[in-house]
Amino acid sequence: MIEEIAVRYADGFKAADLVDPVLIEGLPGIGQVGKLVAEYMIHMLEAEKIGEIHSIYFPPQVVLDESGLARLARNELYRYRAEGKDLVFLVGDHQSTSGEGHYLLADCYCGIAEDFKVKRIYTLGGFGVGHLVNEPRVLGAVNRPELRQEAEAAGVTFDRDEPGGGIIGAAGLILGLSAERGIDAICLMGETSGYLVDPMSAANVLAILSKLTGVTVDPTKLNDRAAEMGKAIESMVEGEKSKDEELTYIG
Amino acid sequence: MIEEIAVRYADGFKAADLVDPVLIEGLPGIGQVGKLVAEYMIHMLEAEKIGEIHSIYFPPQVVLDESGLARLARNELYRYRAEGKDLVFLVGDHQSTSGEGHYLLADCYCGIAEDFKVKRIYTLGGFGVGHLVNEPRVLGAVNRPELRQEAEAAGVTFDRDEPGGGIIGAAGLILGLSAERGIDAICLMGETSGYLVDPMSAANVLAILSKLTGVTVDPTKLNDRAAEMGKAIESMVEGEKSKDEELTYIG
Amino acid sequence: MIEEIAVRYADGFKAADLVDPVLIEGLPGIGQVGKLVAEYMIHMLEAEKIGEIHSIYFPPQVVLDESGLARLARNELYRYRAEGKDLVFLVGDHQSTSGEGHYLLADCYCGIAEDFKVKRIYTLGGFGVGHLVNEPRVLGAVNRPELRQEAEAAGVTFDRDEPGGGIIGAAGLILGLSAERGIDAICLMGETSGYLVDPMSAANVLAILSKLTGVTVDPTKLNDRAAEMGKAIESMVEGEKSKDEELTYIG
Amino acid sequence: MIEEIAVRYADGFKAADLVDPVLIEGLPGIGQVGKLVAEYMIHMLEAEKIGEIHSIYFPPQVVLDESGLARLARNELYRYRAEGKDLVFLVGDHQSTSGEGHYLLADCYCGIAEDFKVKRIYTLGGFGVGHLVNEPRVLGAVNRPELRQEAEAAGVTFDRDEPGGGIIGAAGLILGLSAERGIDAICLMGETSGYLVDPMSAANVLAILSKLTGVTVDPTKLNDRAAEMGKAIESMVEGEKSKDEELTYIG
Repeated sequence: MIEEIAVRYADGFKAADLVDPVLIEGLPGIGQVGKLVAEYMIHMLEAEKIGEIHSIYFPPQVVLDESGLARLARNELYRYRAEGKDLVFLVGDHQSTSGEGHYLLADCYCGIAEDFKVKRIYTLGGFGVGHLVNEPRVLGAVNRPELRQEAEAAGVTFDRDEPGGGIIGAAGLILGLSAERGIDAICLMGETSGYLVDPMSAANVLAILSKLTGVTVDPTKLNDRAAEMGKAIESMVEGEKSKDEELTYIG
Repeated sequence: MIEEIAVRYADGFKAADLVDPVLIEGLPGIGQVGKLVAEYMIHMLEAEKIGEIHSIYFPPQVVLDESGLARLARNELYRYRAEGKDLVFLVGDHQSTSGEGHYLLADCYCGIAEDFKVKRIYTLGGFGVGHLVNEPRVLGAVNRPELRQEAEAAGVTFDRDEPGGGIIGAAGLILGLSAERGIDAICLMGETSGYLVDPMSAANVLAILSKLTGVTVDPTKLNDRAAEMGKAIESMVEGEKSKDEELTYIG
Repeated sequence: MIEEIAVRYADGFKAADLVDPVLIEGLPGIGQVGKLVAEYMIHMLEAEKIGEIHSIYFPPQVVLDESGLARLARNELYRYRAEGKDLVFLVGDHQSTSGEGHYLLADCYCGIAEDFKVKRIYTLGGFGVGHLVNEPRVLGAVNRPELRQEAEAAGVTFDRDEPGGGIIGAAGLILGLSAERGIDAICLMGETSGYLVDPMSAANVLAILSKLTGVTVDPTKLNDRAAEMGKAIESMVEGEKSKDEELTYIG
Repeated sequence: MIEEIAVRYADGFKAADLVDPVLIEGLPGIGQVGKLVAEYMIHMLEAEKIGEIHSIYFPPQVVLDESGLARLARNELYRYRAEGKDLVFLVGDHQSTSGEGHYLLADCYCGIAEDFKVKRIYTLGGFGVGHLVNEPRVLGAVNRPELRQEAEAAGVTFDRDEPGGGIIGAAGLILGLSAERGIDAICLMGETSGYLVDPMSAANVLAILSKLTGVTVDPTKLNDRAAEMGKAIESMVEGEKSKDEELTYIG
């Protein structure tokens, strides 16, 4: 019988080998901001895969790679050994499709953090504002009041009013559920339109996360992608403007 | 593993210390009428928090306070020691997101009432009528025929036809499920448009609940809020009227 | 802890006292045809209530009577002692709100039938055709080929093409699940528009069910209601026609 | 109590009697392509029914045959003894109605394959492209990289970009879940509009499946049906064209 949530570790992996680990969650979400940041870090740091999570709460589908190889939808765990500490990344294809599944999966992630003796979690996400943002801020939330000052010192904005409706999904639930296990957690949310995958917002989150973790990642490629995207949007906007002008001529 | 529904009590709280307790449920609902009444009473009476309820049947999100501190969605229990009896309040962020969850949570609340040896429950809500109401009535429902007279004497209206479709959610289910445990329950529903948070309707419910419980709460602040809201709506209506007049001039 | 499905019998009721019982299911559905027939029979035969079913798969609400008394949504069992056999009726407020709940409840009903040593089940329903029907037929389905002839002899129509999409909900699932327990079942579906409660269709189903069970019920009151409804619809149609004529005059 | 998923085998059937079995899944899906292929093979090969699967995750309804006989929604297993190996077919009325049900059912199917000591599974489906396709390709996916070459040799197309979003439902999940049990699986997806039942696409899938399994099935009747459908569509298109021409004349 299939397990509702199954966690499998790579051969030879031992939680006990982890040194002072920090967990960084970057699952899919608004503007794919968290996913972009975490997967960029994994790529640049050449982090090593240490585990996989499968669940009947993920959408009922398989993912195909470019060669036609199919695999179950999954979340993955990666480890990067930094100086004096390990970064553990949680990334993946999907979040849950049901409310109950969200809780059960987030609880599973927090259980993993506890097993790993994680003392600090960063959850990453986007905060959708409904329009293009020129200088996206990084908004924050914490699961213990004392964490706010540290986050603000790294450039995180705490806004009385935003996000007003709370934080939905893994990035939020992990904050709430890890507090119950005595683990500190900070959520970093990059402002983003909500309509597009947003490397610009991701670059800002990455910069702050680098300060907070002390693990610097060369942001060039992410900035390049953000710059390209910026130009593409600009030329689209220009296109719209010239269309408007043409219409004026016609008028 | 996370519990489907978890109830946690404050340190030192003992159900046995409660004297002749009455349970007052004011969870979110139509016009937030029940929530306004129960939270106003908690505030004015300086009721003491005695417990918290978390559940995977709540929406999968955390709530942020103004300082950016995140916490799980929850329901809360408060206690106020009145003369000769305790008032226990059940309030919170959310009701269940699923039908089954509604039953399981309402059954949990009734289980708490039974553990507390509660003999009387008041469930509070709004009854949406779809238009602004000048003098909102307080409609009632009971889970034992003998309770009706007492409620009517306190000013509750029992209308043959309303609410015709039954009572949905916690305010209704608690009535049905507490009867099975031998606990009396009265539901008080303030008439309300259903479109706005309605302190006017809440003030009427509060007045009747004060008579029924014998615990009087100064209604001034709630009445003030209702008056402000009344003025705001009036000036909106006036605004609409003058727009109509302008249009007439144009015409 | 609340049971997912709870069946409770009246004090003193013993399944062993039932004589050769026949189960008649008339839960809410299209045109309320099945519900009308079963509740009319219960009323006219003064059948005695023998049990109640509650479930978390019903909608999360309570039902109010005209006096403001609330009770949980429920299904009910009634018994009528006819000559040489008992009729057991299954009626109620609601069917399940979820697919899984439909299966679990229908299985519970069949379990009751087996406990009662029921050898024949009639499930009643409406078959929505999308327009007004002047002479509604009673369509049939069976769970054993040999049952068809008996049904046809009583006036049931078996149509190659209808209902093409199968039978949804309790009336259908009981057919399928009772076969697995070796219980014969016939489904009677009165043709109906699907837009209105349809006593005319119900009267036709009642006539056939009387023949099949050998228990005659005076159909006068149901026919009266059907006649009234027929007149009301006729006058509505007339009204529409005269409006059309007026429009013609204008034109 | 009803089982969530129940598998029942024909009397006398023994999994141990199967010789080197191959499982072919053809459940309902896009264009009914998989269902057409598998049911056509069962029909032409006169495969023998060996089992049935019922589940509360199927839609809550019964299926009627033309004589009015009702039966539960089900999946079925058939066996055809080819030279030196058995073909086992999985066909049926429905897939699951819920995400979790999809996982649980697909896992059940893979469990059956494991019990049968199946070493190769073919899952069949349609790939909807949103427009009529003149020469539908058969797209492929595999659950082990080494399988691709064999599939390509039989005429399967592996397209870098399609199907981009993965494969939803049983055809996909069986690929993913069988890999975990060490069973090879190939998915064959016939391109199809997605709007119509598509025997043309099914004929192409059948041709390739015949090559892969070495079990040839006379495709005449399926080709005939495809040809008829092709003509019907052509005449519809012609009809549209002549309407356009008429409109031009009017213009």
